[in-house]
Amino acid sequence: MAIQGRRNGSSARRSPLLTGEGAARATVPVALGERSYAIELGHDWLETIGTRIGTLLGVERVAVVSVAPVARRYAPILARGLAKAGVRAGRIVVPDGDASKNLRELSRLYEKFLDLGLDRHAAVVALGGGVVGDLAGFAAASFLRGIPFVQVPTTVLSMVDASIGGKTGVNLARGKNLVGAFHQPRGVFIDTVTLASLPKRERAAGAAELIKAAAIWDADLFAWLETHIEAFLALEPEIVLHGIERACAIKAEVVARDEREGDLRRLLNFGHTLGHAIEKHARYRGILHGEAVAIGMVFAAERSEALGLSPSGTAQRLAALLERAGLPTTAPDRPRKAYLSAIGVDKKRQGSGIHFVVLKGIGRAGTVRLRPEEILPTGWRPGRRA
Amino acid sequence: MAIQGRRNGSSARRSPLLTGEGAARATVPVALGERSYAIELGHDWLETIGTRIGTLLGVERVAVVSVAPVARRYAPILARGLAKAGVRAGRIVVPDGDASKNLRELSRLYEKFLDLGLDRHAAVVALGGGVVGDLAGFAAASFLRGIPFVQVPTTVLSMVDASIGGKTGVNLARGKNLVGAFHQPRGVFIDTVTLASLPKRERAAGAAELIKAAAIWDADLFAWLETHIEAFLALEPEIVLHGIERACAIKAEVVARDEREGDLRRLLNFGHTLGHAIEKHARYRGILHGEAVAIGMVFAAERSEALGLSPSGTAQRLAALLERAGLPTTAPDRPRKAYLSAIGVDKKRQGSGIHFVVLKGIGRAGTVRLRPEEILPTGWRPGRRA
Repeated sequence: MAIQGRRNGSSARRSPLLTGEGAARATVPVALGERSYAIELGHDWLETIGTRIGTLLGVERVAVVSVAPVARRYAPILARGLAKAGVRAGRIVVPDGDASKNLRELSRLYEKFLDLGLDRHAAVVALGGGVVGDLAGFAAASFLRGIPFVQVPTTVLSMVDASIGGKTGVNLARGKNLVGAFHQPRGVFIDTVTLASLPKRERAAGAAELIKAAAIWDADLFAWLETHIEAFLALEPEIVLHGIERACAIKAEVVARDEREGDLRRLLNFGHTLGHAIEKHARYRGILHGEAVAIGMVFAAERSEALGLSPSGTAQRLAALLERAGLPTTAPDRPRKAYLSAIGVDKKRQGSGIHFVVLKGIGRAGTVRLRPEEILPTGWRPGRRA
Repeated sequence: MAIQGRRNGSSARRSPLLTGEGAARATVPVALGERSYAIELGHDWLETIGTRIGTLLGVERVAVVSVAPVARRYAPILARGLAKAGVRAGRIVVPDGDASKNLRELSRLYEKFLDLGLDRHAAVVALGGGVVGDLAGFAAASFLRGIPFVQVPTTVLSMVDASIGGKTGVNLARGKNLVGAFHQPRGVFIDTVTLASLPKRERAAGAAELIKAAAIWDADLFAWLETHIEAFLALEPEIVLHGIERACAIKAEVVARDEREGDLRRLLNFGHTLGHAIEKHARYRGILHGEAVAIGMVFAAERSEALGLSPSGTAQRLAALLERAGLPTTAPDRPRKAYLSAIGVDKKRQGSGIHFVVLKGIGRAGTVRLRPEEILPTGWRPGRRA
């Protein structure tokens, strides 16, 4: 039963026939005691994923939550697999974009769950990127005080980051992710073939997360990325599978050792101090999260060198890899004061000082507690590297 | 620093001078592993409770969530105690009544939390009845993915029921408690003096919960209530403390052995099958939860006898105690069909059959799985006892 992949810009040339009938090629365990689960990865096995989900959950009914283009392309294949396991799948489409991660869409999801007759013996499948995962995940965490939930991430970013760790939630008008829950999925199922529908720019932004994981944790992966970054962005299946698997394994290890955001998990915020400030100034428009983090990582690496914490050349090596991925590495031109105040808002939430993630070299990171003025010293200017 | 208790109907005669400076008289542990906490009970020690909360949580700031009359009378005393522990308390008033347990009020709470500057190092104190506890508890469970939360229940019902077990949540238009979380409080602090502000009818409805706990679990407590029910309703301090403590201990034991609603915890639903149907038909107006449960308990005890599960006379003994408490024991006159369909709605959510809680005698309960037609057999009519 071969389904022709829809042509979608330049990526369509590489898009294989979507049969959805492959098998898992790799499994990454996430060890969280009673809440342990596995990330299963494969290429072109979406229908099998549906059946795997049905077998895993043993429920009669699921709601598949997705955004329109992803739902159109992939939900029928997933539903076919679910049906083979005797599971009825209802489809719920949410608007795309971070702006739909709000209380109104959440409320709408609850109503749709009731329309579909979801009860305690039902489950939610998030099919899509981070927004879908966060929103559907929190809806699953809170509907009937929590029903099971599975992630089928379809973007690089959500495969290696958003779908691991159990963070779910929505934004309030005054800030992002201010409401939510830790709700671990029962499983994460990755079909790398779904990346074909992703615009090239988003693939690059996702690659920033792989580079981040390598930079803070795994020098070997960093070196591997230095060899294979172009093949990764061109979606060569074996390269994509290996890169995603390694990045998942790193995040899974960090989360397993520190489920609730202690010091270790903070390392995953490498590049986020300046990155968040950049996103805030841009009002989260025009710049992708991975792009802002790329800039923030190079900045943090430079600061690490300046503080004598990492060998000279570390930041340059990081910047070179990011640039090959087509990612920006210098901050938009705004006054230092503007960046200071954006960083200061985060500061208030953390008492005195900010946990600033520094590199100690490629593959090793740590945190230091700094005031905003120490993070952005007098004389620092955006738009150029130190 | 003695604060004169406000006079409030007939109960004011017995209302002591509110000094708020007593001490805990009893402690009931709730054993839930990492999430264990204690219920501390006393009489006229609200200010001390404030200080105990501050010491327990070690936070700088709390939001005290309450309804207007309770906030006016008790929040200043609690705040004085909190201040002694160096904690700044902001006050948030929510509208009274079950109708305010909704997503709009929840959203308003989040905004108020932000106004008060609550961060991960802050906490929420629920000062009031079950509605306040459920709403503030879920807000605490979900704000910033969960901040600490303490209960200071001020009604009989919330002291012995709602504040133990970690169930928090709000209603949707289509049903009660459809959204929420299990979020255990860090502590429950009970000042029985606060019951003086409760109308007599609500005290009686609360007593129904004590009678329920005794009926399903503790024949000695049941016999004790048969001796002391009038003194309990008249709020004699020693009697109230003992009764509340025993009922808390029963619920704590059930919850500790079955945190997430398995068979054991289901016993707490004794009287709820018909009780819920009665509440639904009344659209939750004009009848208090405890009143509906009182009727449901007598009905369930009668059915237990009819099914040959409990000795004859059990239902009569239960009904006699409830009637002495001024509680109704016969269902409002509606066609059997109407009750059947209201029960059937619950059924849908549980697959086939309903877990109907039966008495095996005073102090012992169990569940049997029945179809609605078996629960309400042909010939059953409301308004009279079998």
